[in-house]
Amino acid sequence: MSFLSDLWQSIGEKGRDLIGFGKPGAVRTPGDLTRLAGDLLSGRGEASGVAIAQEILDAYGRLDAPARRAFLVALAEGFGPDSVALEEAMESYHAKPSPAAIMALHRAAEPRRQELIRRLNLAPGGTAALVRLREEVLASLRDAPVLEALDADLAHLFSSWFNRGFLVLRRIDWSTPANILEKIIRYEAVHAIHDWDDLRRRLEPPDRRLYAFFHPQLADDPLIFVEVALTREIPNAIGPLLAQDRAPLDPARATTAVFYSISNCQAGLARISFGHFLIKQVVEELKRELPGLRTFVTLSPVPGFRAWLEHEADDPRTVLSSREREAVAALGEAGWPDDAQRARELEGLLMPLAAFYLAEARSQSGKPLDSVARFHLGNGARLERINWLADRSSKAMKAAAGIMVNYLYDLDAIVENHEAYANENKVVASPAVRKLMRGTRSRSEVATIDTPA
Amino acid sequence: MSFLSDLWQSIGEKGRDLIGFGKPGAVRTPGDLTRLAGDLLSGRGEASGVAIAQEILDAYGRLDAPARRAFLVALAEGFGPDSVALEEAMESYHAKPSPAAIMALHRAAEPRRQELIRRLNLAPGGTAALVRLREEVLASLRDAPVLEALDADLAHLFSSWFNRGFLVLRRIDWSTPANILEKIIRYEAVHAIHDWDDLRRRLEPPDRRLYAFFHPQLADDPLIFVEVALTREIPNAIGPLLAQDRAPLDPARATTAVFYSISNCQAGLARISFGHFLIKQVVEELKRELPGLRTFVTLSPVPGFRAWLEHEADDPRTVLSSREREAVAALGEAGWPDDAQRARELEGLLMPLAAFYLAEARSQSGKPLDSVARFHLGNGARLERINWLADRSSKAMKAAAGIMVNYLYDLDAIVENHEAYANENKVVASPAVRKLMRGTRSRSEVATIDTPA
Amino acid sequence: MSFLSDLWQSIGEKGRDLIGFGKPGAVRTPGDLTRLAGDLLSGRGEASGVAIAQEILDAYGRLDAPARRAFLVALAEGFGPDSVALEEAMESYHAKPSPAAIMALHRAAEPRRQELIRRLNLAPGGTAALVRLREEVLASLRDAPVLEALDADLAHLFSSWFNRGFLVLRRIDWSTPANILEKIIRYEAVHAIHDWDDLRRRLEPPDRRLYAFFHPQLADDPLIFVEVALTREIPNAIGPLLAQDRAPLDPARATTAVFYSISNCQAGLARISFGHFLIKQVVEELKRELPGLRTFVTLSPVPGFRAWLEHEADDPRTVLSSREREAVAALGEAGWPDDAQRARELEGLLMPLAAFYLAEARSQSGKPLDSVARFHLGNGARLERINWLADRSSKAMKAAAGIMVNYLYDLDAIVENHEAYANENKVVASPAVRKLMRGTRSRSEVATIDTPA
Amino acid sequence: MSFLSDLWQSIGEKGRDLIGFGKPGAVRTPGDLTRLAGDLLSGRGEASGVAIAQEILDAYGRLDAPARRAFLVALAEGFGPDSVALEEAMESYHAKPSPAAIMALHRAAEPRRQELIRRLNLAPGGTAALVRLREEVLASLRDAPVLEALDADLAHLFSSWFNRGFLVLRRIDWSTPANILEKIIRYEAVHAIHDWDDLRRRLEPPDRRLYAFFHPQLADDPLIFVEVALTREIPNAIGPLLAQDRAPLDPARATTAVFYSISNCQAGLARISFGHFLIKQVVEELKRELPGLRTFVTLSPVPGFRAWLEHEADDPRTVLSSREREAVAALGEAGWPDDAQRARELEGLLMPLAAFYLAEARSQSGKPLDSVARFHLGNGARLERINWLADRSSKAMKAAAGIMVNYLYDLDAIVENHEAYANENKVVASPAVRKLMRGTRSRSEVATIDTPA
Repeated sequence: MSFLSDLWQSIGEKGRDLIGFGKPGAVRTPGDLTRLAGDLLSGRGEASGVAIAQEILDAYGRLDAPARRAFLVALAEGFGPDSVALEEAMESYHAKPSPAAIMALHRAAEPRRQELIRRLNLAPGGTAALVRLREEVLASLRDAPVLEALDADLAHLFSSWFNRGFLVLRRIDWSTPANILEKIIRYEAVHAIHDWDDLRRRLEPPDRRLYAFFHPQLADDPLIFVEVALTREIPNAIGPLLAQDRAPLDPARATTAVFYSISNCQAGLARISFGHFLIKQVVEELKRELPGLRTFVTLSPVPGFRAWLEHEADDPRTVLSSREREAVAALGEAGWPDDAQRARELEGLLMPLAAFYLAEARSQSGKPLDSVARFHLGNGARLERINWLADRSSKAMKAAAGIMVNYLYDLDAIVENHEAYANENKVVASPAVRKLMRGTRSRSEVATIDTPA
Repeated sequence: MSFLSDLWQSIGEKGRDLIGFGKPGAVRTPGDLTRLAGDLLSGRGEASGVAIAQEILDAYGRLDAPARRAFLVALAEGFGPDSVALEEAMESYHAKPSPAAIMALHRAAEPRRQELIRRLNLAPGGTAALVRLREEVLASLRDAPVLEALDADLAHLFSSWFNRGFLVLRRIDWSTPANILEKIIRYEAVHAIHDWDDLRRRLEPPDRRLYAFFHPQLADDPLIFVEVALTREIPNAIGPLLAQDRAPLDPARATTAVFYSISNCQAGLARISFGHFLIKQVVEELKRELPGLRTFVTLSPVPGFRAWLEHEADDPRTVLSSREREAVAALGEAGWPDDAQRARELEGLLMPLAAFYLAEARSQSGKPLDSVARFHLGNGARLERINWLADRSSKAMKAAAGIMVNYLYDLDAIVENHEAYANENKVVASPAVRKLMRGTRSRSEVATIDTPA
Repeated sequence: MSFLSDLWQSIGEKGRDLIGFGKPGAVRTPGDLTRLAGDLLSGRGEASGVAIAQEILDAYGRLDAPARRAFLVALAEGFGPDSVALEEAMESYHAKPSPAAIMALHRAAEPRRQELIRRLNLAPGGTAALVRLREEVLASLRDAPVLEALDADLAHLFSSWFNRGFLVLRRIDWSTPANILEKIIRYEAVHAIHDWDDLRRRLEPPDRRLYAFFHPQLADDPLIFVEVALTREIPNAIGPLLAQDRAPLDPARATTAVFYSISNCQAGLARISFGHFLIKQVVEELKRELPGLRTFVTLSPVPGFRAWLEHEADDPRTVLSSREREAVAALGEAGWPDDAQRARELEGLLMPLAAFYLAEARSQSGKPLDSVARFHLGNGARLERINWLADRSSKAMKAAAGIMVNYLYDLDAIVENHEAYANENKVVASPAVRKLMRGTRSRSEVATIDTPA
Repeated sequence: MSFLSDLWQSIGEKGRDLIGFGKPGAVRTPGDLTRLAGDLLSGRGEASGVAIAQEILDAYGRLDAPARRAFLVALAEGFGPDSVALEEAMESYHAKPSPAAIMALHRAAEPRRQELIRRLNLAPGGTAALVRLREEVLASLRDAPVLEALDADLAHLFSSWFNRGFLVLRRIDWSTPANILEKIIRYEAVHAIHDWDDLRRRLEPPDRRLYAFFHPQLADDPLIFVEVALTREIPNAIGPLLAQDRAPLDPARATTAVFYSISNCQAGLARISFGHFLIKQVVEELKRELPGLRTFVTLSPVPGFRAWLEHEADDPRTVLSSREREAVAALGEAGWPDDAQRARELEGLLMPLAAFYLAEARSQSGKPLDSVARFHLGNGARLERINWLADRSSKAMKAAAGIMVNYLYDLDAIVENHEAYANENKVVASPAVRKLMRGTRSRSEVATIDTPA
């Protein structure tokens, strides 16, 4: 297989140069670039597409922010479908909705932008540059909603190019090249990695793993990664997992794999989802390597809990009782986590509310309010346990009063859970979580599947 | 960079198993597979897409030919766009042709097959299996024209997945793994490679090169390759290039690179073009390695010449004179190539006709009749020289009375040539070729650009 | 680990060029080279050793055979130890045999050739060139016994450089580079590989394996390799193993690994033994991959049997009976193997003699006469079974009347067997082999260890 | 070549485990290990050498320091040559000093330890473990001089195993695996690397290089490395080279390569020299990559200058004048480097002394006193320039009053310089350095070769 390994090296090499844009060269105006984009779509583009694509992406990198925006808007406004051809295709379809007419209609409705984007991808490092470009599109969407059309086209093509079949799972460890490791440090979004020693503590001990997805076109740059701790029980706090002085566990004795941090790396790939593939593949990888593992579980933050609490507390039609509202207010006081009795009181009031928030509180679409909950429940995981004061970092205290959640990935139940969630908005929760809620609120839709023996 | 090289190895490994279909397992009916395809598109597919995709592709491989056809037809007939949603999208568009309405229309007009194909690609080796599947679609098109819709969707997605940006050029030499080399032997379509010694003669001498394009998902399997001979002049016959006992040229002394064979390897990638990228990239590679190279030229067959001659000879409105028609008839006689005088007579009559056939004879679309000519002229090459009795193999005698052609890739003229060809159907020919035609026929559209100094 | 893999690539690259000697350059006389060798040992050698070493090895490659011989003889005669220093060291040792005196004596007794050879090894590809050089030394030993000193020094250093710790075991399969595979074809010394298809039959089926030892300095060139067949019983003939049309066995069902061919590749490494390491490491490798394997056994030739028989038949003090001598004579007749009755008669007479030859006939050193027997018994294998008419190739008929032998590698008994053999010249044989000999001859030293349960 | 690259990976893998000794297992006494060493040399060792070697090295790692020492002493005392055989060999030699007698004598004088060490090297990771073991031998030599014999044997074999032909030069950069980079941080012996950011400043800017030698058996562990700065002139101080905020130079504009730090990594490889190979190979590498480089020069410390000054100042027969002795005393005062006038006075007195120390002061062997000077002059470099207050770190102030030296590697003069140095102890110095010394002292042996035009 070493022929192949050698083979794909060059893909990455091509991608490296362009990734930061800004190669020196002549300055061009947005208008110049728009004309070049036209050329790229024309006959001239067929003959010398690579060169034109490269020039567009390079020159884009040398523009300042307003000029970039102007070019993006020009793309969004100017490279839609040919409206005459589209009219004709619709007429033909109405005249006779044959397969050929459908094909013609689909083709006519495709914005010319899509072919333009495909041709920009001819440039060395084109894919990486386009991911970066979409990052800028997304950042400008609020101010320039017209960019939505461009975003949709990029997203459409990215979902083909970053199809799961083209991704590769890699374990990251202490023998991984430093230029990749530094990106892990930078991209970690859940529990910050402070320096190289901190990174090392998450990579080198035998009971720690880090896995990432890569794509051939994004040289040395992970798409998403997950950090795993091997333990003998489901953890109820993050502190012991990240402690500097802990004694590592012999992996052969581990029974539980804990996914304690999942980070997306590429803002330009927002909404191109591969997180659930990552978790499932890591589960398979771990099971193959360590047959003693029985339990696969997360230790996850609850990013929206306090915001929801405060919103509810202010809402005249609140579901909160007056004692609960007092508890919400008390969270703002300093020092309560160190006052054992006070903390216990708050626990008694807030834990049922957390269960309610995660399992019952819904958006208009009928899905849970919490984004992390949506991710794991949507993957078919079960809401397993809610942990009080599990993360005392200021970030976690502010977001969720220190509460963390275990979502359980039970491979035998994932499909069923996922379908109940996808089709009926059912949140599958453990008996313990259901018990937490019991009696407190009435309109429960929480499923009542019992823990497997 | 070795991290990456190691990285992509696994992509290839995944692809290897499935490539031949036919993994053992339960037999399923086409109806079963169609239902599974429905599942794959549903919520269940989101949870366990990889497994379902794999099962569909595996089980497809175990079907017999009629059952396969039935499944393909079911895909072509049953997974079009949602016609109600499409109607609504068209109405919205008519009501207000906003960018959002265009996006919605494009989305509604997309056959659900495309998402299905994207999900089939989740299976390990999915891409290779889908290429194989399209090979079968193409082979069945004549008998089952309904498959055109399926073919169009596959081609649409393949043109994204096999975008030039994802391909890698590799030199193939005598240290390449044997399993790849045997595919080169098998795929060579122009001048057959008889055995391993014959292959070696095309790889190992210092004045020989072979380059191929690979894709990460097609493990160990080239997409297209080109064979190159380094020489000191433009060759006028294939024999000396392939001779067993020739003395190799020191590459540092070479002035000319001859592309003497280009072979597409994957029938399932028909019409997904990358040949012109291959030639251009090989030219760049060679120039970097051997700055002494000045001339890049092909030695190409003329696959349709005699068929055209015979068609013309039978046509009452023929452009052929009676002497020319006699010459056409004489080609059927045995032994004429060894009769020097006879051969000279035929040369005098047929060479102008070959020039006319290549440069002037056109299909209704206005393009040249000869497929090889179309390929190189479309790439921006120039019709440089026509060589009499350049290939005496029975295949070449039958196809073109042994005539071969040099197409010249002059990097400075490629874009201009290509545009003249693409926009005005102009065939750029050398003065020598134009001279061959002179006086013989009147409606010449041959361009009159002179040889660069 | 990919850093390392990348790392060692360059070692191989360095080695490649020189391997065939004969780089073009100025012709030098043997005297020139001898002077250069002197320079290499001097202060000048310290400053520019690499260049001088390279020049010596290159220029050696351009000499004709007599000039090479002259240079080798000059090395053998002229670069011994400094006899004055050696005398002094001996005197010091006699005066006081301290550790320092021993060290000094050992140093003084070392021929300066050894340092010269170490410095020749500085040249890129030096190791490969020196292995080639020793090949020529060995080929000349009979005519120029003075070369023995040079051979001894080369062998001494090679045993350090080719220490088992520096060798790497690699499986060779159909995805191995062609330039390595062609060497396997060329080096196979037991059952010739006729062509690439024949090679493929030994590599590609799931029940076939080929393993080789490599050394970092011998680019792409194996040192020794072994071919393995996976079976369900101990084979009694070579034909079925090599048959073209056999159905391969699912390796998971295999119980027995048969080493049916072991070939040394480098004549210049004669007497630098690594064969026993190879077999033991392959056994470990196979056990890890296929836990169902229980039996590790060879199917080996008996290269010296008929030569011994004929020698015995001619010897007045022969151990052969007159019927046995008639049988020996009968082996010269054509066609007997196809005469079933005749073959059975010969079997009855010759099989006990084969057992005697293998287990009892000894050289003056007390070791068995047969070289293959010495190799496997010396490794601790057991003489397991003797197979009649197991190889009907003319080579095997001529050498051993078609007889082949199974030597059994029982990991639990290897150390004990080896020690009995090494210390007491005991040949451990199976009960079946011992039975074959029973009663026929009296001075048996065959061990009587029973088959382990 | 990727077959090879893949190939050697496993060598490194084998080496990794053992490198730290101390694998868990039964505790053994030094006596046990000595008996095992005897077994390893015996017939049993031939059959199961790998296992015994591994057990000895593993168990050694589990011993405490005194027990290790006891085992090392047992090796040094107990595994010398067979004295009876040695006597006989000497007698035979005296009887007839034939080549065979010399060979026999050399063989008889070889301590059995050498074969023992060769067999210990059979263990996976054996080489790395033996390098570590020699580190311990060297550390104990002063207390246990008997270990010299063991050290000599290890050094003898290491000089074969670590022959230049087996080393590989690798550039270390920011994409090198972190486990290798952290060793660079740890091993840097000249200008300490404070953290990962500091390391990065020496690797990533385009005008910085770091090269290391590796050996296949020392997994991921460099033997020696050199740090290079590309500049436009010969630097006269270290500060600007290591400054955090400097602007990097475009390598294409560089004219000078400065070797500003060379660090040996393996204490166990002391006196196995490869430093001069490293520098020469890096020079070649750099010239190939950057043809604009004209000057190759070091910026080196002067580790022994102040110690020598103080020794001279105390010596009644000193070469120092009384003003010079006052200057030596003044070096102990705080703050003088910041007092411009004081510093200038000291410069005037001390710079000629530095020139004298480097070029004229000699040990009894006739070589320069300064170890760094000996290294570069021995390589054939020229003493080019002495720089005042070039390194104000406390280490450099203490060692050399902040003086640093440029040694010039002029490829055309290296051989000549080396020979003059090796044969006649001549120190080749630039006119500027010679001028510094002029008139101050009389017994100059400084060569008077002029700067090449």
